[in-house]
Amino acid sequence: MSDLANQIAARIGAKNVVIDADLLAPHLNEWRGRYSGKTPFAAFPATTEEAADIVKLCVAAGAKITTQGGNTGLVGGQIPDGEVLISLKRMNQIREIDAGNDSLTAEAGVVLATVQSAAAESNRLFPLSLAAEHSATIGGLVSTNAGGVHVLRYGMMRDLVLGIEAVLPDGRIFSGLKGLRKDNTGYDLKQLFIGAEGTLGIVTAACLKLYPQPAAREVVMLAVPSAAHALALLHQMKAATGAVSAFEVMNRLSVEVTVKNVPSVRDPLAGAGALAVLIEFEAAHAEGLREAIESALGAALEAGEAETALIAENASQARDFWALRESISAGHKPEGVQVSHDISVPVSKTPEYLAKANAAMQARCPGVRIVAFGHMGDGNFHYTAMQPLGADPASFPGAALTQIVYEVATSLGGSISAEHGIGITRRGDLARFKDRESLALMRTLKHAIDPMNVMNPRTMFE
Amino acid sequence: MSDLANQIAARIGAKNVVIDADLLAPHLNEWRGRYSGKTPFAAFPATTEEAADIVKLCVAAGAKITTQGGNTGLVGGQIPDGEVLISLKRMNQIREIDAGNDSLTAEAGVVLATVQSAAAESNRLFPLSLAAEHSATIGGLVSTNAGGVHVLRYGMMRDLVLGIEAVLPDGRIFSGLKGLRKDNTGYDLKQLFIGAEGTLGIVTAACLKLYPQPAAREVVMLAVPSAAHALALLHQMKAATGAVSAFEVMNRLSVEVTVKNVPSVRDPLAGAGALAVLIEFEAAHAEGLREAIESALGAALEAGEAETALIAENASQARDFWALRESISAGHKPEGVQVSHDISVPVSKTPEYLAKANAAMQARCPGVRIVAFGHMGDGNFHYTAMQPLGADPASFPGAALTQIVYEVATSLGGSISAEHGIGITRRGDLARFKDRESLALMRTLKHAIDPMNVMNPRTMFE
Repeated sequence: MSDLANQIAARIGAKNVVIDADLLAPHLNEWRGRYSGKTPFAAFPATTEEAADIVKLCVAAGAKITTQGGNTGLVGGQIPDGEVLISLKRMNQIREIDAGNDSLTAEAGVVLATVQSAAAESNRLFPLSLAAEHSATIGGLVSTNAGGVHVLRYGMMRDLVLGIEAVLPDGRIFSGLKGLRKDNTGYDLKQLFIGAEGTLGIVTAACLKLYPQPAAREVVMLAVPSAAHALALLHQMKAATGAVSAFEVMNRLSVEVTVKNVPSVRDPLAGAGALAVLIEFEAAHAEGLREAIESALGAALEAGEAETALIAENASQARDFWALRESISAGHKPEGVQVSHDISVPVSKTPEYLAKANAAMQARCPGVRIVAFGHMGDGNFHYTAMQPLGADPASFPGAALTQIVYEVATSLGGSISAEHGIGITRRGDLARFKDRESLALMRTLKHAIDPMNVMNPRTMFE
Repeated sequence: MSDLANQIAARIGAKNVVIDADLLAPHLNEWRGRYSGKTPFAAFPATTEEAADIVKLCVAAGAKITTQGGNTGLVGGQIPDGEVLISLKRMNQIREIDAGNDSLTAEAGVVLATVQSAAAESNRLFPLSLAAEHSATIGGLVSTNAGGVHVLRYGMMRDLVLGIEAVLPDGRIFSGLKGLRKDNTGYDLKQLFIGAEGTLGIVTAACLKLYPQPAAREVVMLAVPSAAHALALLHQMKAATGAVSAFEVMNRLSVEVTVKNVPSVRDPLAGAGALAVLIEFEAAHAEGLREAIESALGAALEAGEAETALIAENASQARDFWALRESISAGHKPEGVQVSHDISVPVSKTPEYLAKANAAMQARCPGVRIVAFGHMGDGNFHYTAMQPLGADPASFPGAALTQIVYEVATSLGGSISAEHGIGITRRGDLARFKDRESLALMRTLKHAIDPMNVMNPRTMFE
């Protein structure tokens, strides 16, 4: 072990400093196999003070740090490349549930599903919900400003955070764990650390907003003729029910490849509709919700916004509807060479985005197959271009198609990364597509708070 | 005119640079008469580019800047003391309403009520609502992260902002006016300018979130025996109806002095209850709302959470209920020497705050009269200590009482300024009550972004 590893072992216990390759392996490999890394050792602090002392020792030794939560990120930011790895896994305590304040304080290493369960046990809802919820941890979800399927009603992680505790790049501790709804005493410093992907400090705990448990939930699936019809449907449903908690779309091809490649999944719409739309509704009381939805769906069918509308008759059918949506990532993986994107545009521009991007893809690569799905209610599509059937994988112009996707999104006032972040994967694209003043301001912040570039030094910036 | 004034006049037109004392007067005096200031001249840009060029000219001349919106602030930040005054009043265009994106883009000088009306004309709601809404401007509301009566349901201004345009302290323009619900491309730079009270740049425009217009609204007033009962009532109403949009309380004395001093106002509860509670409900459809409220109120009366409950039978009665709440500021002004505060605590701690603060006030100043009212649903009280009846005003220990209020709030994890900000008034208190690391981090940000201390140089920092 190096001097630094020995110093840290003396502070947090030798068994919490790991150099064994087998034990390190799960922390050095991204779950899809796209990134693998290296580290001199991994340190596992159990407290904020331990994390702070590790940072101070690293700074004194001139070492850099990569921070890791549940290792579920999609852009490579959590995999070290020679830096000391700090894993927050042992900081896994729920420090407080204050039901009377509708808040819960969790350490960085607590898994999202654990927070959801703890909230439910207090008759409250923590609404963040996403595919990795049984592995992703609060620290990572805060640091990446995670999204998911309920952003439409409850916002992203940024909107769900009341307070933050973080270790700064010089080892000082920022103690901003207040559970306040209102606090205008100076700059809102917690915002710095939310979505900063660990480049400005290590989030060690967060105070999170809870909501009342909805008493009633309904799930609907519709076959819709076009994205313009889906947009009209979205506004109609929001205005008529006030209860829309998710509005997800899947284009026809995304449904087809999923039904083909994921045996447990079926298409409730049996092939109908250019788009399948899944809507979830939540309400504080059951009375009137079903009637309001049925009436709104009747109007939507009448107006031609939908061709078919199915209301889940029970929880099992609701799970079936969601299973299709949640299986699409797995569904299109086996379809050959592909490039994936996570773009957003203003909600009003979603039909225009799909029309322009699809046309530009076909023009550049005739026969390209487009899987478009995701959170249309937030203006966010997961948009994948797959090689034409039977084409030579080596000839697939993936990089060129990615640039086209980003150009189309940007031209509509959109974003090249709606919820997945920048990490390592999108650093070059960020430098290309972000305006000069914003990039300069980002570097000003990074330099002011982490002048030695200690924290996640390869993340976000080229 | 000075060289600088002449240079700016050459850029934006002589009539938009004001040195005449009579014309300056409305900009140099705070509306309650607590602050009056001085300036070499006031500049009124009409465009973002004009504002940027004014800043560049000021920087080149070594001049400091104070920025002003509607001059409705309560902490003196908008009144210059020798700095060049930049007023955003002429930047008063609504640039875009995108109903399909539920967003509206307004320049800094647009008055809040104008935004509310424009949203309503597009069949949308802009939910921010506060007493100064016919004077306060978007730039000031963003810069002070304004709150108001609908925070419980819709959040503060920070939660209602999708994008920001701002002039930086060196005259560069930050163009972050995107209308996106999701954008994880690097640091969320707009957060820097929200609530920064103009110390990091001049907000010139904002893209704001709109909501569907609620189809139904109900207003209820209740006599409640104690703050603990009011807290139970809050959670009961939220869970049972899912429709609470405001939860305001007024202690008995605040109602009494208002009825006494504001002739147009009456007390619907005719003196009942230690606290009067006003609850507003909103729903997307009228069916079922009244029944849900009546059922929840029945349960609350049964449980002893309320002694009396009145449901407004029509819009006129609802306005009467709100008129009492909105007249309290005017109602206690005539009651002699007083010190006012705007504190928050976790919602669960609101009864404890009132008990501890009231006891500590009486201990320090026997006979002191406490007016406590405001946004209990957000943990926020406007808390005023008034001189004992018949006491010598000169003997009133106002400063000492303020320190006690802040000590009690801070000891409960609270804030010394929930929605009014720091400005000039609370700089000393901020230095005393904010933790050292947060103050240091604030100074780091200020120095990184405004190293010459050009922007609102006396605001927030001592």
